[in-house]
Amino acid sequence: MKGNVIVGQSGGPTAAINSSLAGVYRTAIDRGAKKVYGMLNGIQGLLEEKYIDLSTHITNELDAELLKRTPSAYLGSCRYKLPGIHENKEVYEQIFAILEKLDIEAFIYIGGNDSMDTIKKLSDYAIITGSEIRFIGCPKTIDNDLALTDHTPGYGSAAKYIGTSVKEVIRDSFCLRYDSGVVTIVEIMGRNAGWLTGAAALAKGEDCAGPDMIYLPEIPFDFKKFKDKVAKLLEKKASVVVAVSEGIHTEDGKYVCEYGASIDFVDAFGHKQLSGTASYLASYIAGELGCKTRAIELSTLQRAASHLSSRVDILEAYQVGGAAVKAADEGDSGKMVVLVRQSDDPYQSGTEVKDVHKIANDEKLVPRNWLNKEGDYVTEEFINYVRPLIQGDVSPIMVDGIPRHLYKPEV
Amino acid sequence: MKGNVIVGQSGGPTAAINSSLAGVYRTAIDRGAKKVYGMLNGIQGLLEEKYIDLSTHITNELDAELLKRTPSAYLGSCRYKLPGIHENKEVYEQIFAILEKLDIEAFIYIGGNDSMDTIKKLSDYAIITGSEIRFIGCPKTIDNDLALTDHTPGYGSAAKYIGTSVKEVIRDSFCLRYDSGVVTIVEIMGRNAGWLTGAAALAKGEDCAGPDMIYLPEIPFDFKKFKDKVAKLLEKKASVVVAVSEGIHTEDGKYVCEYGASIDFVDAFGHKQLSGTASYLASYIAGELGCKTRAIELSTLQRAASHLSSRVDILEAYQVGGAAVKAADEGDSGKMVVLVRQSDDPYQSGTEVKDVHKIANDEKLVPRNWLNKEGDYVTEEFINYVRPLIQGDVSPIMVDGIPRHLYKPEV
Repeated sequence: MKGNVIVGQSGGPTAAINSSLAGVYRTAIDRGAKKVYGMLNGIQGLLEEKYIDLSTHITNELDAELLKRTPSAYLGSCRYKLPGIHENKEVYEQIFAILEKLDIEAFIYIGGNDSMDTIKKLSDYAIITGSEIRFIGCPKTIDNDLALTDHTPGYGSAAKYIGTSVKEVIRDSFCLRYDSGVVTIVEIMGRNAGWLTGAAALAKGEDCAGPDMIYLPEIPFDFKKFKDKVAKLLEKKASVVVAVSEGIHTEDGKYVCEYGASIDFVDAFGHKQLSGTASYLASYIAGELGCKTRAIELSTLQRAASHLSSRVDILEAYQVGGAAVKAADEGDSGKMVVLVRQSDDPYQSGTEVKDVHKIANDEKLVPRNWLNKEGDYVTEEFINYVRPLIQGDVSPIMVDGIPRHLYKPEV
Repeated sequence: MKGNVIVGQSGGPTAAINSSLAGVYRTAIDRGAKKVYGMLNGIQGLLEEKYIDLSTHITNELDAELLKRTPSAYLGSCRYKLPGIHENKEVYEQIFAILEKLDIEAFIYIGGNDSMDTIKKLSDYAIITGSEIRFIGCPKTIDNDLALTDHTPGYGSAAKYIGTSVKEVIRDSFCLRYDSGVVTIVEIMGRNAGWLTGAAALAKGEDCAGPDMIYLPEIPFDFKKFKDKVAKLLEKKASVVVAVSEGIHTEDGKYVCEYGASIDFVDAFGHKQLSGTASYLASYIAGELGCKTRAIELSTLQRAASHLSSRVDILEAYQVGGAAVKAADEGDSGKMVVLVRQSDDPYQSGTEVKDVHKIANDEKLVPRNWLNKEGDYVTEEFINYVRPLIQGDVSPIMVDGIPRHLYKPEV
């Protein structure tokens, strides 16, 4: 590389997004980049000229190892939506002026659907204006809802945490007996796509029956069918455990959490904030069936649990970071790195680049035939898809009993 | 030993209670017990003559290792409160008839305060009736609120999980920026004692500033002081993270969670069910300060997370199980095994037995001088107390990406 590289992180954090950052940094240095800058809080921070020189943060190999094990976005993230080029040309002029000042050759953005929209617009603007800066997207989202890539970095680690935690919850749920039985509802992230919630099925194995039902947002939720099934299970089981997506909704599109009293909040991308699905279903079942119920929200923990990340995921995240730099260095722009599954047994994957115009804002959902007929469990195909992605561990570097992270003062 | 041993588990589950069960089993076999029975669901199951022969479950050394890594109570638990001897002699006659039928020499009960009450009553009854059966209590509670013992098995693993998870949440909380700042409230178990919530301070270290405030139930909660402190912090920090005990209450004894709309539910021991403290505080702060807030309940996960247990804790749990059998074999009854801290640096502990009459129903709280003057953080003394208890790891035995547990069919 002749110029410099700048990298940003955007959207919700994951346990693997910093491994991609480490991959970008390492490959950029290896390919001769003079400087590798990190935007603080993504494109939003860049607009305020907030960035750092990554070489002052990743000073040796141990720092890089710690970075791979540090959850959340090391550089900070944002949910900033770039206006259309025709809507606000000034923003683009401002961004490109900063990039030129920093002698940027490659702009790498690690994020999900909304972030790929940013790559698309910036690369379009570069074409229009004849800029030689290259823009490459690096996939990241625990939601696994990006099109064209087999899966997204971040998903495997979240899935491993969800499978493990749901198994531990199932074990716990059988401990205390209640005459009426006990029903535990575990709420898992996922607004429209049920990839994360489906991973609850990973709890199932020789030593665990797994959750009893799994409800994804891909299929309308039916309160009565749900209640009847729980009631039937309680006739023969002391404990029923149900995994539900935060985004499940009834036929008419109303979110289950909206049935409870909840505050309406819409973020910059117009997404409703969902929460309280498990609580509402727990009180619904308690009211209808008069049994003991519990609601558990895996909440932030499921995206931040670096201590239980998947080795396959952390390595692939690192790999896509490197592949993004390589693609830019070789002249690509307006592309996203994708993961291609080459084989299931043994699991093997590789990277390719795809046109970001085909990816942006297109949500990949769980296929209908990866759910059973009743729509309340995932099939073996689903489990076979996700199982390879949770393999192997990345041992936390424990210092005085607690995992060590790469430190950046945060104020 | 000449006769047989029976062991039960009682009260809330932990990540270490099965390690004590493994310790009881191993020592009983080593000391010549012919049979080691396990009561299913504690004394409540025993009354229905529900028990198993543990040798059909722990068939080899690998099973014992898996048992140490299996969360929740393997035998099932109960919250059954034995009536006073004068109130219902029939229950005692029934229990002793079953124990005699099984040729029981030692009765080991692994549990917390309520379980030690059971040991006390049964050993009293044995004295009254001249029975030679010995009753020994084995401490277990994530709450760490048992008197006379330096700490309780189960606490160290929960503390390690809490310190780790709070650190990951803090990292996550700095990721996305909000103009108004973001306040995260993490709710941790602990009705009257703040040992678990104080462990949030373990997140603090060279690489993490730790939570901003920690509120324990030992000190009355003051809404206004809390709000003012959060507001002041938000002037200079983008993210404020607060750890609160589920049992915090205002000066008048009203629980903070009762300020929100919550269902009143009282268990067999007359304990109110608490939940919703973080949610209520999050909506209170959002309303008062107009900032973004998040509520996270560590819920069941903090007591079930075997995948992140403390080696010191798991080994000590095993050790107290063994010590309980040894004490019974040597003629003790009406005693509880306690852990004695012999040295802090290097940390060393040993076991002793203490009269259970001095322990039962006496809750050990966090001393006032282990909290700062404002009552919103723990001191170095607290951290020095808990730090040795979270040291070392017990690697989960991973099978296909998920921790393996010892299997018992649960219906």
